[in-house]
Amino acid sequence: MEDNFVRVGIAGLGTVGVGVVKIINGLNDLLEVRSGKKIVIEAVSARDETKNRGIDLSDVNWYHNAVELAMDADIDIVVELIGGDEGIAYDVCKRALKNGKHVVTANKALIAKHGVELATLAEKHKVTLLFEAAVAGGIPVIKALKDGLAANDISKVIGIMNGTCNYILTTMQKTGRCFEDVLKEAQGLGYAEADPTFDVDGIDTAHKLVILASLAFAGKVDSDNVYIEGIRNITNDDITLADELGYVIKLLGVTDLKHNAVTQAVYPCLLSKEHPLAKVNDVFNAVTIYAEPLGNVTLEGPGAGEGATASSVVADIIDIVKGYSSFAFGVPVDKLEHHSFTSVESLSGKYYIRIPVEDEKGVLADISQVFDDCGVSMESVVQHPRKEKEDVLVVFITHEVSEKVVQGALQKLEAIPTILKKPSLIRVES
Amino acid sequence: MEDNFVRVGIAGLGTVGVGVVKIINGLNDLLEVRSGKKIVIEAVSARDETKNRGIDLSDVNWYHNAVELAMDADIDIVVELIGGDEGIAYDVCKRALKNGKHVVTANKALIAKHGVELATLAEKHKVTLLFEAAVAGGIPVIKALKDGLAANDISKVIGIMNGTCNYILTTMQKTGRCFEDVLKEAQGLGYAEADPTFDVDGIDTAHKLVILASLAFAGKVDSDNVYIEGIRNITNDDITLADELGYVIKLLGVTDLKHNAVTQAVYPCLLSKEHPLAKVNDVFNAVTIYAEPLGNVTLEGPGAGEGATASSVVADIIDIVKGYSSFAFGVPVDKLEHHSFTSVESLSGKYYIRIPVEDEKGVLADISQVFDDCGVSMESVVQHPRKEKEDVLVVFITHEVSEKVVQGALQKLEAIPTILKKPSLIRVES
Repeated sequence: MEDNFVRVGIAGLGTVGVGVVKIINGLNDLLEVRSGKKIVIEAVSARDETKNRGIDLSDVNWYHNAVELAMDADIDIVVELIGGDEGIAYDVCKRALKNGKHVVTANKALIAKHGVELATLAEKHKVTLLFEAAVAGGIPVIKALKDGLAANDISKVIGIMNGTCNYILTTMQKTGRCFEDVLKEAQGLGYAEADPTFDVDGIDTAHKLVILASLAFAGKVDSDNVYIEGIRNITNDDITLADELGYVIKLLGVTDLKHNAVTQAVYPCLLSKEHPLAKVNDVFNAVTIYAEPLGNVTLEGPGAGEGATASSVVADIIDIVKGYSSFAFGVPVDKLEHHSFTSVESLSGKYYIRIPVEDEKGVLADISQVFDDCGVSMESVVQHPRKEKEDVLVVFITHEVSEKVVQGALQKLEAIPTILKKPSLIRVES
Repeated sequence: MEDNFVRVGIAGLGTVGVGVVKIINGLNDLLEVRSGKKIVIEAVSARDETKNRGIDLSDVNWYHNAVELAMDADIDIVVELIGGDEGIAYDVCKRALKNGKHVVTANKALIAKHGVELATLAEKHKVTLLFEAAVAGGIPVIKALKDGLAANDISKVIGIMNGTCNYILTTMQKTGRCFEDVLKEAQGLGYAEADPTFDVDGIDTAHKLVILASLAFAGKVDSDNVYIEGIRNITNDDITLADELGYVIKLLGVTDLKHNAVTQAVYPCLLSKEHPLAKVNDVFNAVTIYAEPLGNVTLEGPGAGEGATASSVVADIIDIVKGYSSFAFGVPVDKLEHHSFTSVESLSGKYYIRIPVEDEKGVLADISQVFDDCGVSMESVVQHPRKEKEDVLVVFITHEVSEKVVQGALQKLEAIPTILKKPSLIRVES
């Protein structure tokens, strides 16, 4: 970097890229005072040079090939906002690091897949790789794990990290409408993609989760060992019954470290209304970090959108300009552990079980007998009188029990003829 | 600092000092991996060398005079945990900075009063002054303002920053007991001091608030221009009526920057139940930062206690060891503005007004007439049937109006003979 200038190249001018340009241009004096240098956009790269993006790029070099931008000798920091876990985004980051340029990216899929390799390259070439915007948009949760909570032993991190799912679940709860309806509305509002798989099936949350797990437990990012379950099977009955029992349903990413094994899981979950994450609604994101000796800290805010994500990208740029040369995952790559991972069957906890039954005498006794035989004891049971044309639902919340035992009990229930459909099981976050 | 070691001197071995020693000794390997150096406690200072504090200090130099510790040539970082805004704490920090040592402190009163002078000294001697633990204990809110949200224009910061007050208000709400009762209980539990003035009258919150205001708006810390009102006058009726109207009552520190003037105010406040701070209960602290383009971010966690506060102190030490040489208030002292401050009378907002009246016809009409004449219009009015031996309470929530106008109306109400006691007024945070 020159003495008083730092020159940034931005690869990708979608929503976030445009947001980054707006912040750098709009708050330039403020950023200079805070970072100590003038931040200059030296070059950008995107497919369509003629498109009106509402930003002034007249003084900026234009690259049609982002990899060339990553090799521009005049650029100090490359900002990768192309997306995707392979191809051009991957090439741009590798090329930039190899050319001795700092890299800032918002690309969760890329970091989840190639984070260790890229961090190794950054260390080798003595540059910094940062990706605050990759997790929970504008919420500075990565900096919290790397810096603010650095004096703590982290045991667990759980988070609402997908705004689409949180919007859908919150709206289902508020309106009593079903998943498909609300998903359609979310697509109309631009909160959900035409193909919603990535969001509603938990894949997006999983990418973010493995990054947090790596930072929390100083482990090599591992996106292969994640249990992933989305929210498609959550019904209004589940939400109503959970509410009655003192819970809300949220799609959570959950990671913890116990007995030298890391759990990485994404699933819809009953969360006590007292938990700080329980009242995080609509498209908001939030993450709770369980730290010792600190206690639990929760960070809540906008998890996506032009301004929020761009704000994290520019905060990373400022860190680099200030000379905060931190390691990508908080510690040098050679200190990152190769953790072993738990399987979801080996977990234990409380479980919510909803069983649609015929409205006949004895059915509750039959079910209870099966649970009893399998060693599953119950904390609460709810059964409501039958409403017209609807199944009778019996709902249980178990005491702490192993997932294997619960799954075994569910299999045995199949033999009871008065059970009308497959019971559904939702984990309870304790 | 030597190559692989950093030597710390701790002045003050109260709860937080002991917590710092425990973290540095207990997590030493982890801290070395995260910071890149071995952190060694070189010296401590406290009055009583023989007291059993449950920590091993056998290899550590002992100073009876903390100022001498601050001059020890072998020490790189001085941690000031003595407390107080003058005297020995002030001397220790000044002497350490003048001797080219980095300083970490948890002392909010000192930073609120002498922050600018100490930051100037730190810059002059090219060392770092950090005080994350001074505000909201273990919650990394200072780092969020300096780093995580550095790419934003901050317009407002509000926070629950005193655990004692939050515990008292939460317990009043849960149990229906009065302020004095709950205060006594809090004193018994160690949540409140024998002399609770500092906490319940808002002074502690004010110290923290002026530090956040400085960081948010790049202004010189100013502890003279703060409006401070505590929670002694909050009654159970207020809490119950607020609840009925959709609000909770919290003691808030509020600072914003509008039209080039900064407001710094501490007061009990009606907060919508939908606000992220509304469900922060008991001794927990939380701060909401209003940032543009990011949006609102809320950080919640333990605001006090050995582990929480010590964790922030050690995080600051790690930042220094990593070479994060940030400015104390985020920007160089010569860039800190000398803001002008608003007076509380010049504010406007919504107000909750509780008026104890005689149970007679016409009283509501009389009161309404006064408000009408003064130009105060109402959003909600609540009046309950008289309970035995109790006053009838009429409660209003105004529309947006200037504080001056409301205060004028309250004065005029004094002429109405059916009003039994002085009305009470609580601001509504919007």
